[in-house]
Amino acid sequence: MKIIIVGATGTMGQHLSSGCKQDHEIIRVGSKSGDIQADISSPASIENLFRQSGSFDALICTAGPSHVGPWKTLTDKEFRRGIDGKLMGQVNLVLIGQHHINPKGSFTLITGALAQEPVLNFANASAANGAVEAFVRAAAIELENGVRINAVSPTVLEASPQYFPFFPGEIPVTLKQLEWGFRKSVFGANTGQVIKPH
Amino acid sequence: MKIIIVGATGTMGQHLSSGCKQDHEIIRVGSKSGDIQADISSPASIENLFRQSGSFDALICTAGPSHVGPWKTLTDKEFRRGIDGKLMGQVNLVLIGQHHINPKGSFTLITGALAQEPVLNFANASAANGAVEAFVRAAAIELENGVRINAVSPTVLEASPQYFPFFPGEIPVTLKQLEWGFRKSVFGANTGQVIKPH
Repeated sequence: MKIIIVGATGTMGQHLSSGCKQDHEIIRVGSKSGDIQADISSPASIENLFRQSGSFDALICTAGPSHVGPWKTLTDKEFRRGIDGKLMGQVNLVLIGQHHINPKGSFTLITGALAQEPVLNFANASAANGAVEAFVRAAAIELENGVRINAVSPTVLEASPQYFPFFPGEIPVTLKQLEWGFRKSVFGANTGQVIKPH
Repeated sequence: MKIIIVGATGTMGQHLSSGCKQDHEIIRVGSKSGDIQADISSPASIENLFRQSGSFDALICTAGPSHVGPWKTLTDKEFRRGIDGKLMGQVNLVLIGQHHINPKGSFTLITGALAQEPVLNFANASAANGAVEAFVRAAAIELENGVRINAVSPTVLEASPQYFPFFPGEIPVTLKQLEWGFRKSVFGANTGQVIKPH
């Protein structure tokens, strides 16, 4: 299977790449390194990504930039980081990628528990996640040729302890659990689902 | 109570305005008419709205522009209509409005059943709704001075039969039911809730 991993140079992406590369052709996409460079906040950069990758069987996105910071001074400008990044970046990967994906292929996007369980300072990620989850349900009834779409929703990652203070009482998800979540989407048959890997 | 109704000249807004004006001071906001004109896709226009309205007790938004159309030709450009309108328009009403609302005031935003139950051609509204609902949950734990926030989630409106063909099998919501939903948010004590008026 030819699998594009967007965000392949990040913590999640690196783990997924090394977990899948024995059995599959992996195209690693990063913002500054990887096999192909792409800025997912730019539709032109996404078009360029698919021109370079050619057709593919699965796209996994683990890249979801958003703004973290105090609520009271939050403005349109900061909020756009998650809107242009985690939300429209992933939406555009699907809207553009649908014209390059093989029949019976799949898209797997990244969301997170913040959609349902907010914590202070992360309203931007909550909104982006809520949008991604509703988009996945909507896209699932639109995509043709057996193409599927799901989102994986971790809580805080065990590999990112710097975020623990923001998520009191949240049991961290291991990279192995997260990998199983993505495997369920890519190698399973579900569509329109939000997969919680814990 | 001093209540700002954004979208006051639309079908929902007109009904709410006339239902509340006996007992409350209503400020009707429309894009082209009403007591104050505002374009909610522009943060500057929202700033101007609150400069004109002064402090208030409740803000109701029934305005949620989004793109309706075929999936296959959907691009970033069309998708931005709902992102800049129904999503960021409402987010900015709260981010800016929090600095003008009275203690124990409330924000009530508009979402819709499409967040959970997609129909063809409405992926843009689904995504915007999902974001608004997650944002409401996040904002509810951030807002201070007893300020509350909820969203009302109707299905298709009985007053808008032109949309019925897009929503097969969906039991329409009456304007009276919708009014009860908004009343539950404005005059009740809940916060962070998605209220389904049916």
